[in-house]
Amino acid sequence: MRNIKLIVEYDGTSYCGWQKQPNQPTIQETIENAIYKITKEDITLIGSGRTDSGVHALGQVANFYTNTSIPDIKIKDALNSVLPQDISIRESIEVLEDFHSRYSAVGKQYKYVIYNNKTRSPILRNYSYHVSYKLNIDNMERGLKYFIGTHDFCSFMSSGSSIEDTVRSIQEAYLNRQEEIIEIYIKGTGFLYNMVRIIVGTLVDIGTGKIHYSEVPKIIESKDRGKAGHTSPAKGLYLREVFY
Amino acid sequence: MRNIKLIVEYDGTSYCGWQKQPNQPTIQETIENAIYKITKEDITLIGSGRTDSGVHALGQVANFYTNTSIPDIKIKDALNSVLPQDISIRESIEVLEDFHSRYSAVGKQYKYVIYNNKTRSPILRNYSYHVSYKLNIDNMERGLKYFIGTHDFCSFMSSGSSIEDTVRSIQEAYLNRQEEIIEIYIKGTGFLYNMVRIIVGTLVDIGTGKIHYSEVPKIIESKDRGKAGHTSPAKGLYLREVFY
Repeated sequence: MRNIKLIVEYDGTSYCGWQKQPNQPTIQETIENAIYKITKEDITLIGSGRTDSGVHALGQVANFYTNTSIPDIKIKDALNSVLPQDISIRESIEVLEDFHSRYSAVGKQYKYVIYNNKTRSPILRNYSYHVSYKLNIDNMERGLKYFIGTHDFCSFMSSGSSIEDTVRSIQEAYLNRQEEIIEIYIKGTGFLYNMVRIIVGTLVDIGTGKIHYSEVPKIIESKDRGKAGHTSPAKGLYLREVFY
Repeated sequence: MRNIKLIVEYDGTSYCGWQKQPNQPTIQETIENAIYKITKEDITLIGSGRTDSGVHALGQVANFYTNTSIPDIKIKDALNSVLPQDISIRESIEVLEDFHSRYSAVGKQYKYVIYNNKTRSPILRNYSYHVSYKLNIDNMERGLKYFIGTHDFCSFMSSGSSIEDTVRSIQEAYLNRQEEIIEIYIKGTGFLYNMVRIIVGTLVDIGTGKIHYSEVPKIIESKDRGKAGHTSPAKGLYLREVFY
């Protein structure tokens, strides 16, 4: 069996997230169906991790085992010819048998887009978080720096997760503002459920003055989800890259 | 009667263009219906010009006459509360009685977005023209400069237009490349039917080597649509600003 690694971009707007579930459109099942169309094989596609309903990906990674004779780099074009327009395979390459999209991953980078304007934007409505209040970017940047490093991120995890070890490392976190668009980039070894969205929600609360940036270390120490800010919406979030 | 000027942003994807027509969703009719909801008045909304099916706007201008007592700057929020998410009023302001969105306009700026990558982008699929061939940007820039000035743009007009005077002035034309995104900005006193899309199609043909950039003056002089390049798709085009 050959092991094929895919790099996948998708617009998550019309999907109930990555992971397959009955009677719901998902990215995983849509790609599995496309693989069936080109190989006639019923495979299970292993993703680097789930993405929630409405979350986008610029560089999601997935792999599957196949007996197809299609050359690895041709699989990309074959899949793109049968996939819907809101999913695209950016790369397809044969990897060693033991490569596993989830277990082999050593880190991920997310991007989050905020549209900061009094009036909502039709063009960006599914691709950004519309914040109509004035944001203090300097304070948001100061707050963001406190997240870098190894911390127990328990305060930044939505309930419903059964994970016990909530210590994670953020290696890089920065933001760019270009007029009314704020892009936040966060790279880490791993992320808890909704962690990026709660960090961004907290930053927005810092930007509006609801939370002071110097409180971030105390919020982390509290290990209390109630102390952190709101959960920002899924549609502003992009899984940008998975590292191996 | 008060004359209210609107600045409108829209995602043209789901509409058959600006201009009202029977049994088709249009931007004009959708806004007229929204105005009816807030004023109970059946008005005619005057746009600065049509946009085709799939074309977007960041700053379309329109005006209408009304007896409503809603303060002018509040009309924006009132309309946004009843408009669908793919249309947004950016500004509403009372203007002099003789202001006319189309006749008072002295110029317009369009933006055109090309996504230049071997693989299509799901996120940008409705907001850009996907060109998978390698483009020579320097040659495209050289070609673009020839359009600046006053010319007979007959070669850059789609048939079906009954306009006789095809002389127009382009005051500004430049392009920006940021990685795989090419943005082309064109500002002029007026535009013929599909003029921007044929200019962009010609630039893409220059970028791929199909047309040499130095041929642009000859193409203009020929007054022959057949000599210019292809018509680029509507979805990459944005009406960015209307000048008065």
